Amino acid sequence: MNTTDRAAETMERILNPRRVAVVGVTSSGFGFGSGILSSLISIGFDGELFPVNPKGGSIHGLDIRTSVEAIPGDIDFAIIALPAHLVPDALESCRRKGAAGAEILSAGFRESGTPEGAALEERVRAIAARGIRVIGPNCFGVYSPRGGLTLLPGPALSREAGRFAFLSQSGGHTIDIAHMGTWHGIGFSAAISFGNGADLRETELLEYFGRDPQTDIIGMYIEGVDDGRCFYSRLRDVCAGKPVIVYKGGLSEAGGKAVASHTASMGGSRVIWDSLLRQCNAVSVDSIPAMADTALAFTRLPWRRYRGISIVGGGGALGVAAADAADAYGMELPVLAADLQEAIMALLPKPGSSAANPIDVANPYVPANILRDVLLLAARDERVDIQVLVQLLYHYKAALGMFSNPPLEEIVPVEALADAAREAVDAGGKPVVAVLPNHLRGADSMDVEKLMRSARAAFLSRGIPVFDDLGSAVRSIGNVSRYMAVRERRGNAVSP
Amino acid sequence: MNTTDRAAETMERILNPRRVAVVGVTSSGFGFGSGILSSLISIGFDGELFPVNPKGGSIHGLDIRTSVEAIPGDIDFAIIALPAHLVPDALESCRRKGAAGAEILSAGFRESGTPEGAALEERVRAIAARGIRVIGPNCFGVYSPRGGLTLLPGPALSREAGRFAFLSQSGGHTIDIAHMGTWHGIGFSAAISFGNGADLRETELLEYFGRDPQTDIIGMYIEGVDDGRCFYSRLRDVCAGKPVIVYKGGLSEAGGKAVASHTASMGGSRVIWDSLLRQCNAVSVDSIPAMADTALAFTRLPWRRYRGISIVGGGGALGVAAADAADAYGMELPVLAADLQEAIMALLPKPGSSAANPIDVANPYVPANILRDVLLLAARDERVDIQVLVQLLYHYKAALGMFSNPPLEEIVPVEALADAAREAVDAGGKPVVAVLPNHLRGADSMDVEKLMRSARAAFLSRGIPVFDDLGSAVRSIGNVSRYMAVRERRGNAVSP
Repeated sequence: MNTTDRAAETMERILNPRRVAVVGVTSSGFGFGSGILSSLISIGFDGELFPVNPKGGSIHGLDIRTSVEAIPGDIDFAIIALPAHLVPDALESCRRKGAAGAEILSAGFRESGTPEGAALEERVRAIAARGIRVIGPNCFGVYSPRGGLTLLPGPALSREAGRFAFLSQSGGHTIDIAHMGTWHGIGFSAAISFGNGADLRETELLEYFGRDPQTDIIGMYIEGVDDGRCFYSRLRDVCAGKPVIVYKGGLSEAGGKAVASHTASMGGSRVIWDSLLRQCNAVSVDSIPAMADTALAFTRLPWRRYRGISIVGGGGALGVAAADAADAYGMELPVLAADLQEAIMALLPKPGSSAANPIDVANPYVPANILRDVLLLAARDERVDIQVLVQLLYHYKAALGMFSNPPLEEIVPVEALADAAREAVDAGGKPVVAVLPNHLRGADSMDVEKLMRSARAAFLSRGIPVFDDLGSAVRSIGNVSRYMAVRERRGNAVSP
Repeated sequence: MNTTDRAAETMERILNPRRVAVVGVTSSGFGFGSGILSSLISIGFDGELFPVNPKGGSIHGLDIRTSVEAIPGDIDFAIIALPAHLVPDALESCRRKGAAGAEILSAGFRESGTPEGAALEERVRAIAARGIRVIGPNCFGVYSPRGGLTLLPGPALSREAGRFAFLSQSGGHTIDIAHMGTWHGIGFSAAISFGNGADLRETELLEYFGRDPQTDIIGMYIEGVDDGRCFYSRLRDVCAGKPVIVYKGGLSEAGGKAVASHTASMGGSRVIWDSLLRQCNAVSVDSIPAMADTALAFTRLPWRRYRGISIVGGGGALGVAAADAADAYGMELPVLAADLQEAIMALLPKPGSSAANPIDVANPYVPANILRDVLLLAARDERVDIQVLVQLLYHYKAALGMFSNPPLEEIVPVEALADAAREAVDAGGKPVVAVLPNHLRGADSMDVEKLMRSARAAFLSRGIPVFDDLGSAVRSIGNVSRYMAVRERRGNAVSP
């Protein structure tokens, strides 16, 4: 077995373990160890769990073992949530128990800025070097929908596996984006919060998920890298075959200082990072919502270059914003052919509508079948590569008064609108994305929120990605397009 | 009476009219005219309403007059929602009836790109020149909380007047931000959608609200201006005394083309606009949510320069993002004095917390009184000018399992958290803003959404502005700070 195969086998045992020790539970049920144990049970981990605490006892009907050594047989993976000074010995015990890896949730290592913390982290690193891969310390751990592993605290993450791997120095960002997996339309092959990164960190994880056949898209939150040259080389290799979406935190001088106290990494300047990411053809984003939106676009859209976008929806100003956003990605809103404009205008309410592109449908209550026909007509223009359907569903709330106030969901044809988008994709042959903004967020508009959520689910279940606002939609499409444009130029434009 | 006084008197009759004609209702109750009439009744307009349609009849218990002339006595204001070709004659009738102004909701004028449309708009302009001020055409009209006027369609806008005036070429943006006035913490002196701007438009409106004693902050969505030199001069004057927040649409080449078809304006290049806005000390934003957030900061925070920010909350990565955002505005996260750090650390759970600034409180369940004490300690550092309290309330959802699943609102101390922020402001003497992100937006997390909304209301009712994410909070504080820094340099730094 070569090194790569062995590394893959090790990662498989980490991401899909059968026997897991949870070291540092309390019988009271409070604390990180007990929290992660409850979360594993909630999410339905179906291997064997071995809680450990020197005092023994039981928790959730499981015997608490008094030591790692007291666990019968070998283990695959360990979750360690002990005070920092107890971690190295526990880790060594796990190694002797044959664990392929361990995640160390505890803080109090290098990030504390103390000599004791640094020394403890050195001990962890030394034990890892003897044959157990370590995730952390100072992290939220591993989320593996397939394996049933979850983050701290993550009792309600989705068990449906997807094809997006997220790798992060920040536990907060990891839990946030993992939560988004329950509703946003992105699904994870894994999400790994590696915190201080004493052992496994950005470069090796990138290499593994770059080869992982279950991962198509990789996202990374990076504060600093351990070995710039090596990371650069891997990133460039991986980006040739899979998009890697990078959110680099701490690019300002002040941000760099904050990085140092957060994960004790060296940041690096904005100029260097921008240039490095561009050369590698990594996709750069500046927030976790932008990361999720871009991952959604790569998940649900064909990977290709998009040059022309048509916008269908209410409001001319939206078209202006879309055109501004598109321009930054070398995309445009082509003026539709005159005969198509005429055919579209014949379908729309007048006056107030316009069909030049953006196609302003003039009011928010245009029926779904008309919208479908408008999308199909616009798709016939060969300069249109992708379409954006903007639905201002919150305006239905204002219309309730006209209909003696029935529940909002009864008057908004959510399923029909989602069907219209799907039919337009199927018959028109061009992808459609939906934009569902909501500006009604008062306590008296919970019905609008509920409506937005069913609408999102309706579109997603038909394979139509949904964005909160037009700018995010256009930027996410632009990220796919720009990534593929570079691959075309470099001659590796085959999508999976 | 001088010209300025006369203009003010005219605007007062437009914003606070007693007798209003609604020209173009249908007895069926459908269409723009009937929609705006219902909206005026819903919102509680308490002057006299005169619906007009040649067929007569009645609507909502009001007689429909067969013509403008058939209205008994004079009118102050008219709302015109007729097919475009009927508009000029109706407008002339309104002028003869003594109306100070009219809003023309109808489309089909210059924006249609036809010679007929352009000719109709010229006629409107000529009538306006004879003594009636026109808002529109192709607009959503005037929202005046004090006067009880509302937009199309705007039955549920707030009647509580505030001190923010919004002026916009886009009706969509106007209705969106006006809706935000019901929950976001911004309140309006007026919001005016002027569409094609055949008569009243950016420069005169800016001048009026610049002098208006009921307006402290002005927001503008601009696609293009009519007279650049004159606008520039007014903008510079007004910015010396009141912040003017400008969202300029159509700055890209493609966006400029979209502008032309939306409101038939000439856009102007990005370089020229950026330089113009900077020279005038206008506050530039790039979206309507950013406009609202910046208006909120100017509404709720002291107008001054902010140099140092302290961040209190869970998650080190948030501090990294905050430092990056602050840096762009010449602000920083000063490292707190050693004695304050020590005192703060004594209050926080360990390990995992840190007090250097950002103050990472290590878990999302830290009690309100501890957070208050942490804020008060950080306020004692003289380099801290303002504080940001980040509350990741959605994490309480994960904790429900530990408490046999009570309703979420029972376990989250929303009022106590808001009290803590208020007490910190009162006793510490430094403003506090709250950040309440929510990444749990699935159909099964409506309880989290409800919680977020009560939390927002609780903070706002205590004068604490709330933002959705840390980046928006820091940028909005930065906009106040940068604006006041320029005023200081120019020697007009007195806030109202």
